[in-house]
Amino acid sequence: MNPHGQSFIAGERIAGTGSAFQVVSPLDRSTLPGVFLTADESQVDAALQAAALAHPVFAATEGSKRAAFLEAIADEIMALGDVLIERAQLESGLPRPRLEGERGRTVGQLRLFAQMAAGNSWMDARIDPADPSRQPLPKPDLRRLLVPIGPVVVFGASNFPLAFSVAGGDTASALATGNPVVVKAHEAHPGTSELVAEAIVSAAKKVGLPAGVFSMVHGSGKVLGPWLAKHPATKAIGFTGSEIAGRALFDLAASRPDPIPVFAEMGSLNPVVLLSGAIASRGAAIGTALAQSITLGAGQFCTKPGLFFATEGEGLNAFREALTSTIAGIVPSTMLHPGIADHYNAKCSSIQAHDSAKVLATTTTAADPNATQGQPLVLEISAAQFIADDTFRHEVFGPFAILVVSSNETERDTALSKLGGQLTATIYGDEAELSSSQPLVAKLGSIAGRVIFNGVPTGVEVFHAMQHGGPYPASTDSRYTSVGTAALLRFVRPVSYQNAPQDLLPPALQDSNPLGIVRLINGQPSSAPLS
Amino acid sequence: MNPHGQSFIAGERIAGTGSAFQVVSPLDRSTLPGVFLTADESQVDAALQAAALAHPVFAATEGSKRAAFLEAIADEIMALGDVLIERAQLESGLPRPRLEGERGRTVGQLRLFAQMAAGNSWMDARIDPADPSRQPLPKPDLRRLLVPIGPVVVFGASNFPLAFSVAGGDTASALATGNPVVVKAHEAHPGTSELVAEAIVSAAKKVGLPAGVFSMVHGSGKVLGPWLAKHPATKAIGFTGSEIAGRALFDLAASRPDPIPVFAEMGSLNPVVLLSGAIASRGAAIGTALAQSITLGAGQFCTKPGLFFATEGEGLNAFREALTSTIAGIVPSTMLHPGIADHYNAKCSSIQAHDSAKVLATTTTAADPNATQGQPLVLEISAAQFIADDTFRHEVFGPFAILVVSSNETERDTALSKLGGQLTATIYGDEAELSSSQPLVAKLGSIAGRVIFNGVPTGVEVFHAMQHGGPYPASTDSRYTSVGTAALLRFVRPVSYQNAPQDLLPPALQDSNPLGIVRLINGQPSSAPLS
Repeated sequence: MNPHGQSFIAGERIAGTGSAFQVVSPLDRSTLPGVFLTADESQVDAALQAAALAHPVFAATEGSKRAAFLEAIADEIMALGDVLIERAQLESGLPRPRLEGERGRTVGQLRLFAQMAAGNSWMDARIDPADPSRQPLPKPDLRRLLVPIGPVVVFGASNFPLAFSVAGGDTASALATGNPVVVKAHEAHPGTSELVAEAIVSAAKKVGLPAGVFSMVHGSGKVLGPWLAKHPATKAIGFTGSEIAGRALFDLAASRPDPIPVFAEMGSLNPVVLLSGAIASRGAAIGTALAQSITLGAGQFCTKPGLFFATEGEGLNAFREALTSTIAGIVPSTMLHPGIADHYNAKCSSIQAHDSAKVLATTTTAADPNATQGQPLVLEISAAQFIADDTFRHEVFGPFAILVVSSNETERDTALSKLGGQLTATIYGDEAELSSSQPLVAKLGSIAGRVIFNGVPTGVEVFHAMQHGGPYPASTDSRYTSVGTAALLRFVRPVSYQNAPQDLLPPALQDSNPLGIVRLINGQPSSAPLS
Repeated sequence: MNPHGQSFIAGERIAGTGSAFQVVSPLDRSTLPGVFLTADESQVDAALQAAALAHPVFAATEGSKRAAFLEAIADEIMALGDVLIERAQLESGLPRPRLEGERGRTVGQLRLFAQMAAGNSWMDARIDPADPSRQPLPKPDLRRLLVPIGPVVVFGASNFPLAFSVAGGDTASALATGNPVVVKAHEAHPGTSELVAEAIVSAAKKVGLPAGVFSMVHGSGKVLGPWLAKHPATKAIGFTGSEIAGRALFDLAASRPDPIPVFAEMGSLNPVVLLSGAIASRGAAIGTALAQSITLGAGQFCTKPGLFFATEGEGLNAFREALTSTIAGIVPSTMLHPGIADHYNAKCSSIQAHDSAKVLATTTTAADPNATQGQPLVLEISAAQFIADDTFRHEVFGPFAILVVSSNETERDTALSKLGGQLTATIYGDEAELSSSQPLVAKLGSIAGRVIFNGVPTGVEVFHAMQHGGPYPASTDSRYTSVGTAALLRFVRPVSYQNAPQDLLPPALQDSNPLGIVRLINGQPSSAPLS
């Protein structure tokens, strides 16, 4: 593949007039083909102006048309074939099977969201019929539904070059509900981004949508972020990445003359609580499972478990030994880009140098810096140290975790109380001890978006009951998710119509219920037409 | 009534140690009985600490218990009898029938939200059952529901001393979903606030809830706002009032180390579009209806229509004359407090002095400054002037409106395009002309939360299909409403449970469906138990 390096603005390839950049492959630090051209402010403006123009047209499309669009995107992505996988591999260093799996997830997500678009149920249609005889005043006819909020700017993540990038969950959520999208391509995989953008542009043409429904601009977040976040036409932002970058976008959006919502998913420590019965009965098995979970994909998941809370007791040594021996045998793998690997290695060095930390596990094979590898590392500290020093309470993105050992459950709970918001919290426990752990479960539910029992937090289902988001700093708004069908709700807002003529109502609210959806009639769900 | 002037902190009356203040009645500018003591920072801290402690207990209560609480609050408010109405009248200057009506609405809202709490349907329970045979990986069991977000700080509005104040929609929304509440009493009606707070405290005791579920503190927003908004225990804010105060709270919340959601409803211009057919056929009737709508309650509603857009043509003079003569006959009424009246009069003077504005209507009777009256005023300007000068695009809180006259519909649409976010937008039109106004309706729906046909925007229903909120500056988050049962959704967040044992799941998610609610099972609504 030979990337053209251009942005897509309302269906057209446009060469950016800003600075040029290339990608260094993390696999061997070679410079990859393709010179990418940063879009300038007028090009970003053109993308958002086109999105604003397309918005009313796109918002008025039927769900079936948006479904066809998402299906077409999925088809176009599959039609890219190996070219996409190969470029993504060179740019991200992720292994082929992982990228094929991620493509499957991306396409599956688009098709699931196509079903949501076609089904129209997300609109939450509500009808409170009129009551002209009500005293002291007649009751008007009120009908409410969710409508697209307007152009959404999406910032892709480096760790999912397909599933959380150009055609990832944020884009799929926005398009399914009728919002134009402008993507800021991630600088670590601009060639992959370009291929996927082409697929979306081509799908929009095939389905006959206005070109402004999708644009993608090249450049760094530092340069383009403020233009995109502060543009008057931007009505919402979706972001996945670091806390620093996510917070910067949040602050830009909050300081606008008209603040706009930002859903930034910014990662997590993902604490794991190991109850004593489980450790006593199957400490080794849990140690092995967690060793695999923290090293999976070089630990570059926002759900990678980064903290294990155990109490001293039977089985803990078996847990430690399994963790140590499993990780010893793992071969370090390539991280997403040199910047991430350098950052990881620097963080490991500094935290490892801490007086109170001892190394519990690392690999026998040293990481190869030429292959941008990150060396897995697990430290052990005491709960007292964890409580005393917040050094150990910051996410280390990569194959790193800390075992925090308490002398008793009270101390463990004090340690847990130091945690901020989390994407996930996990408990390993046997049946009986879990039964008596209601307060612990409630505590974990109060800080996390997802509570997992006897399993690893890595692995995120894309379906209706998923919650991927949590109290800050896991995300900027704990009331939303960026994964699963509820992710659509980030980019819609309600509108009520009072005493509207039938022909001016959206189909979802018309008496005859032409969409055949379940609606709340006087607060009761019903799919019957109104007589 | 002789107010004690104290704050309620976790069920106890506590005398604030900050500065003392009294209330001047807008009716006759007399100083009312009662010396109110501003809470200090440690007292605000105590209220929020108590709320944080109460949160897990309150969050774990059953919906029926929260319903009993809300019902008990309604009963206690009614039991206050005339004392409440009389104090509210002295403090707000609002007439007795209006306050009785508002009390009815407040109590009705509490009882409606009690039904919501008891019915548990707001929890949006979702279950994606496990599929152990799925390839390549087994599918886990995932169950998701909405849970209370945590302590909510409520800032009451001056213009609804009951329905948007201590036991108003924000408090009812937060309590119905299991969130403790700390109210900052409005300085314009602290005696009314004190009575209602006593009712809530007494209801909490009767129902047997922890005292920290409710506190109310006295003092000014400038002093207490930052303490309340930045306190670590505060998890969300509900506010109704001016754009300046709402934005200040939003900025405080957004600048926290951990930003929290703020729903601030900040009022609106509430544009009314008058189509030519309607004006030709019933211009006088519409003029009369709008004259009444802008002067109702001294124009002190966030839904007061502030802008009328008409095109020159048949019937417009009849509209003008009806507006002029109806308003001429109105007797100016007392505004909520001297500060509001002074602000209103100053704004009227400055905008009226504008070269391009001519007075279309005002009252024959002059406003009496000793009775804190605001004199109704309607100006007329050309659409060209409206387009050229943003002086005319700011809300004037009080009985004020502007008629904007266009020479044609294109010019009118240009004028409309200058509008920011609105709570409401209204169209008066005859059947045929409405039928061909789809683009106009779409335009109004794109800027407003509620679109009204052939009726005034004042009058807000509290039911399921109401939307009271809109794009900024109507509110700080267009995705939510502060009125109607959907207002509950502001203060809840989703939590997913993965592979949880039945006995650790909240009842809403247990296989047997003990709450008997409709749940999404694999995305399909069903109230059946899981086998």
